[in-house]
Amino acid sequence: MGGNSIGKQFTVTTWGESHGPAVGVVVDGCPAGIALSEAMIQVQLDRRRPGQSAISTQRMEGDVGVIMSGVFEGVTTGAPIHIMIKNMQAKSRDYEALKSLFRPSHADYGYQMKYGVRDWRGGGRSSARETACRVAAGAVARALLAPVGVDVFAHVISVKDIHAETFDRSQIEKNIVRCADAQAAQRMEELIMAARKDGDSVGGVIEARAEGAPAGLGEPVFDRLDADLAKALMSINAVKGVEIGSGFGAGLNFGSQNNDQMRMADGRPVFMSNNSGGIDGGISNGNTIIARLAVKPTPSILKEQMTINSSFEEATVKVEGRHDPCVLPRAAPVAEAMMLITLADHYLRHRSSRA
Amino acid sequence: MGGNSIGKQFTVTTWGESHGPAVGVVVDGCPAGIALSEAMIQVQLDRRRPGQSAISTQRMEGDVGVIMSGVFEGVTTGAPIHIMIKNMQAKSRDYEALKSLFRPSHADYGYQMKYGVRDWRGGGRSSARETACRVAAGAVARALLAPVGVDVFAHVISVKDIHAETFDRSQIEKNIVRCADAQAAQRMEELIMAARKDGDSVGGVIEARAEGAPAGLGEPVFDRLDADLAKALMSINAVKGVEIGSGFGAGLNFGSQNNDQMRMADGRPVFMSNNSGGIDGGISNGNTIIARLAVKPTPSILKEQMTINSSFEEATVKVEGRHDPCVLPRAAPVAEAMMLITLADHYLRHRSSRA
Amino acid sequence: MGGNSIGKQFTVTTWGESHGPAVGVVVDGCPAGIALSEAMIQVQLDRRRPGQSAISTQRMEGDVGVIMSGVFEGVTTGAPIHIMIKNMQAKSRDYEALKSLFRPSHADYGYQMKYGVRDWRGGGRSSARETACRVAAGAVARALLAPVGVDVFAHVISVKDIHAETFDRSQIEKNIVRCADAQAAQRMEELIMAARKDGDSVGGVIEARAEGAPAGLGEPVFDRLDADLAKALMSINAVKGVEIGSGFGAGLNFGSQNNDQMRMADGRPVFMSNNSGGIDGGISNGNTIIARLAVKPTPSILKEQMTINSSFEEATVKVEGRHDPCVLPRAAPVAEAMMLITLADHYLRHRSSRA
Amino acid sequence: MGGNSIGKQFTVTTWGESHGPAVGVVVDGCPAGIALSEAMIQVQLDRRRPGQSAISTQRMEGDVGVIMSGVFEGVTTGAPIHIMIKNMQAKSRDYEALKSLFRPSHADYGYQMKYGVRDWRGGGRSSARETACRVAAGAVARALLAPVGVDVFAHVISVKDIHAETFDRSQIEKNIVRCADAQAAQRMEELIMAARKDGDSVGGVIEARAEGAPAGLGEPVFDRLDADLAKALMSINAVKGVEIGSGFGAGLNFGSQNNDQMRMADGRPVFMSNNSGGIDGGISNGNTIIARLAVKPTPSILKEQMTINSSFEEATVKVEGRHDPCVLPRAAPVAEAMMLITLADHYLRHRSSRA
Repeated sequence: MGGNSIGKQFTVTTWGESHGPAVGVVVDGCPAGIALSEAMIQVQLDRRRPGQSAISTQRMEGDVGVIMSGVFEGVTTGAPIHIMIKNMQAKSRDYEALKSLFRPSHADYGYQMKYGVRDWRGGGRSSARETACRVAAGAVARALLAPVGVDVFAHVISVKDIHAETFDRSQIEKNIVRCADAQAAQRMEELIMAARKDGDSVGGVIEARAEGAPAGLGEPVFDRLDADLAKALMSINAVKGVEIGSGFGAGLNFGSQNNDQMRMADGRPVFMSNNSGGIDGGISNGNTIIARLAVKPTPSILKEQMTINSSFEEATVKVEGRHDPCVLPRAAPVAEAMMLITLADHYLRHRSSRA
Repeated sequence: MGGNSIGKQFTVTTWGESHGPAVGVVVDGCPAGIALSEAMIQVQLDRRRPGQSAISTQRMEGDVGVIMSGVFEGVTTGAPIHIMIKNMQAKSRDYEALKSLFRPSHADYGYQMKYGVRDWRGGGRSSARETACRVAAGAVARALLAPVGVDVFAHVISVKDIHAETFDRSQIEKNIVRCADAQAAQRMEELIMAARKDGDSVGGVIEARAEGAPAGLGEPVFDRLDADLAKALMSINAVKGVEIGSGFGAGLNFGSQNNDQMRMADGRPVFMSNNSGGIDGGISNGNTIIARLAVKPTPSILKEQMTINSSFEEATVKVEGRHDPCVLPRAAPVAEAMMLITLADHYLRHRSSRA
Repeated sequence: MGGNSIGKQFTVTTWGESHGPAVGVVVDGCPAGIALSEAMIQVQLDRRRPGQSAISTQRMEGDVGVIMSGVFEGVTTGAPIHIMIKNMQAKSRDYEALKSLFRPSHADYGYQMKYGVRDWRGGGRSSARETACRVAAGAVARALLAPVGVDVFAHVISVKDIHAETFDRSQIEKNIVRCADAQAAQRMEELIMAARKDGDSVGGVIEARAEGAPAGLGEPVFDRLDADLAKALMSINAVKGVEIGSGFGAGLNFGSQNNDQMRMADGRPVFMSNNSGGIDGGISNGNTIIARLAVKPTPSILKEQMTINSSFEEATVKVEGRHDPCVLPRAAPVAEAMMLITLADHYLRHRSSRA
Repeated sequence: MGGNSIGKQFTVTTWGESHGPAVGVVVDGCPAGIALSEAMIQVQLDRRRPGQSAISTQRMEGDVGVIMSGVFEGVTTGAPIHIMIKNMQAKSRDYEALKSLFRPSHADYGYQMKYGVRDWRGGGRSSARETACRVAAGAVARALLAPVGVDVFAHVISVKDIHAETFDRSQIEKNIVRCADAQAAQRMEELIMAARKDGDSVGGVIEARAEGAPAGLGEPVFDRLDADLAKALMSINAVKGVEIGSGFGAGLNFGSQNNDQMRMADGRPVFMSNNSGGIDGGISNGNTIIARLAVKPTPSILKEQMTINSSFEEATVKVEGRHDPCVLPRAAPVAEAMMLITLADHYLRHRSSRA
């Protein structure tokens, strides 16, 4: 109960620090008989890894995921699946200067207050490196859900005040921002590069969608699908908000505008809108599931900031090193992973809904 | 694991349907020795109960909370605390007409798809009546946290496009909207009354704050305080979004603007801003904890809407009956309760942080 | 996490003290569509209730179980099922004398050390009255499992040094000891009456069996079916030991004697013995599941005993009142209930074993 | 929820198959600030490892435990502690012959029925190799509990019909049987060697004790300390029974004999006997905690046995290879580990007992 597990049926537990020998993840509760290979995991890890483009950190980590257990002759066995990713290029010396300083809006101060000790090397446990494990577990969830028709993807819909205005899914992986609007992507990229040049950082909004999820996922009244998605997505580093469907915009509508009315089409129920984001009363309704995540600007910036040190003295800090000026492009695969993990959990839990 | 429990150490389980004999809540894991009375629970239930003002539903339910176990001679004993609230005035006949219709943007359709059966009387388990149990459990959490200095309150900051522009905490309980800006409250009230008259409904945004929470609450990496708050708040009926601190606004800042820099004042660390909403890296930092909830317009409206019935035929529906044209004023105490429950859980979990 | 819940998918939470207004149980995670009536619960409660025979306590409690939620038109809805049993005849005055004394081998001293406060009326939370809730929940589990062919029953196989020597299931409910050997039952009854007359008490061994449980129940490596049965059965008041199959006798065999060899019969696998008690490697093998529980003599006896009081002074105590001189006959339905709850949990968990 | 975790606050999750690249364990919820080194883990792993004496399997596995996370500069940080143990000498070819045969009284048949697939190499997940992970986690629990005075040890009290008759703790680690009676140990060893020579195996009983555990550990009513110990100990491979204190012998006493009466000595409560095994009403009373485990004879024997194969045809099987003719000496450290893990969990949970 240290808080490093998520999911009640499809349970994901991560371990590892940024500058330790490795990070890893145990997926417990995955059914037997799912086809799973390291290649299926690697393709997702590659989408998250550092150094993949000019706008991400220039650290070059291989991020090779190795399946250590739970898979035999190409299929899952029902045993816990452990995937390990060795850490490379950990330059702890870069962090010596930060050893006793609390970086503003980082986890440093909270960890120190909580535990009294702190692995300061690269952020230790609070490093975004831990999200590689989430992506690996998300790949397992994808392997479980894809055969039943669930398709999850995420894209960047705004960076600071630049918003995507068009949606072409095929564009997402074609630009380094992961934006479905190629023109907006170009402007976002320029903004990010300018922020980096200025030693600053920018944030924005990511949207994650699940198509093909069946109606009936989610458990009243606390483990609602939207509540569990909110937790899963908010648990990603730098995320400060989550909304479902019309979200904060829902409050601007009248009820008569916001309700998703229903018709039949080709013998199947259809919704005339999707303000619910595919979830009513905490249960999926068969419509596309839509969540959006607010991502703050990376707190690691080169500009000098006021802070205190671990002796509770005032100090200043500049966070040198190789940091992403904008984490959104790399956070998109993490958002997908957390949505996949949540859906996998509820997909399995749903099996107990009826006698 | 049916999903009707929340909290790992301070565990809250609710039961009961809108039109059954009663609803109730079991709080397990509350420490012994906390002073707790029915009066402390009732004062909170009264803030949530129907019929309290002209803008809430005109159902008159007493909502009397009775402590059935776990308290002896005025203090908690460590045994589970069961609080029961009898249902009054349940007019199931009002719902006969809705028996086989799925009300748009309600839980009806999802429940039917999930379970194959459905208690259609008053929404059954999906009724907001269940939130009375949350408020009762929140009162227990408050009794645990108040002696250690944690003070939680919530207020309505916008109704549709009317926003509170000033903040005076003393105003909140003085107007029926629960808005800290008395003038905005007046306009909000008028808007709500107009919506009711038109057979429509409106939504908005609630803010919940916790003052006095110590630094160190929250467990990396999944059970972060913000992640657990997001889940707890998103699990409230009609909530479609949750944000912490600058939330969706964080994305509009540069990192250098968004970071909360630190100084010392009177020998204690202070933050020069609170964009983090009191939580960094998922752990409380001692600053005021701030969360905002987007609440959709009540889906129960008098206007005719298109829908389908349980035979999958097209139909229309008007949701007659006594419904809140705007649930925000009554949802504010529920938001407080969910924040209190989450903080109580992490307050106790934090006891295991150090040797 | 106060410890008052058991089961991960079929989750049972009990609340209530012996001398409070009622006791109750919430079953969460029961699938929708199970036929369930109060009569199905009552028949089991009647088998456990006090005052049912000359050898049980003479307290006369009606023990009427009322379904408060989760059932609509005769079937479960998937919502939590709350069953409440009002307390009658609670004579707290009987316990005034025991208010500050720790009864030997009772929970009194432990509760005081743990919580610092204690509801001393009738044992409070530690009273065996709580087991009525388990029996009610067991009836729900039975309603889930009976349609799939699982049949659970328990019987007393020894009282002190008197052992059942024959097994005739039809005899169990025909004698007040619940022994499958009518002649042994007669001698057991005499022994119990003699112990009562002497102000003393006796214990013994109960056997619980599940016939018809499918192979495949149980989760490696900690939530093994035998491990979860051991927990469930050991959690019953006065139980001091649990064994599966040949149990403590297994150690007296050579491996070649203890192994259950397999053959085919009528196209189905059969075991040539059942030393495993139906469970190998923590997973059911389709053979009858057999568990035995060691039950200590009731610690409440009329004889004077040495003890201390809550001021840590030496004292003596005689536990007056209406106590069972032998709890085994009434504990048998509780053992059945705990086995049923455990099997129901694993029956549902097993649904996630395969893709 | 695949069943590979145990403990609610001090949570232990194991992964890995016998013939995979490694096995490992994640301990989540261990407080920060505990001194922990690989040497503290290795000393325990060495007590469990194969090949340590003439009566254990002759496989020579180094069983080197490596701390991969959660420890920084010699102390725990509050982050999950991952310990990995590489597999050596995995001779999967030995198992080719058993690929489609169900070894009697092994997990083979149950796994096949449950999952439809099975890693047959060396028993895969069901191998006792997994218990190395438990021993590693137990060493972490010991590091947490030793500074507060809790001392756990286990010893073999019977092998088949040979019983220890004296108790001298200092003898336990001096003989290869781990028996506290040196003379009985000699006879046990001879019996084990004779069984091996005959291609057979023997079982017996282990006793585990915790001295110095404070009163107050255990949570009513399901997560009782004895119930959780029963689960933890029953979850060990080959264990078929668990008893606490006088256990199955309790039923042979009158209540007046079985009750542990209390006196004061040197200002502290003392018990005049320990039939309760240190636990009353599920809560520790400060007396020595005593549990005994029935261990069946190793099912892997060289003698020919009847079985069926995975095509459901009758067959015979001889389990060749390097198996322990008696697992008790190596199971004793595993029993200690499971007792330590359970106590660590309840030690931390107890921190929430009082306001």
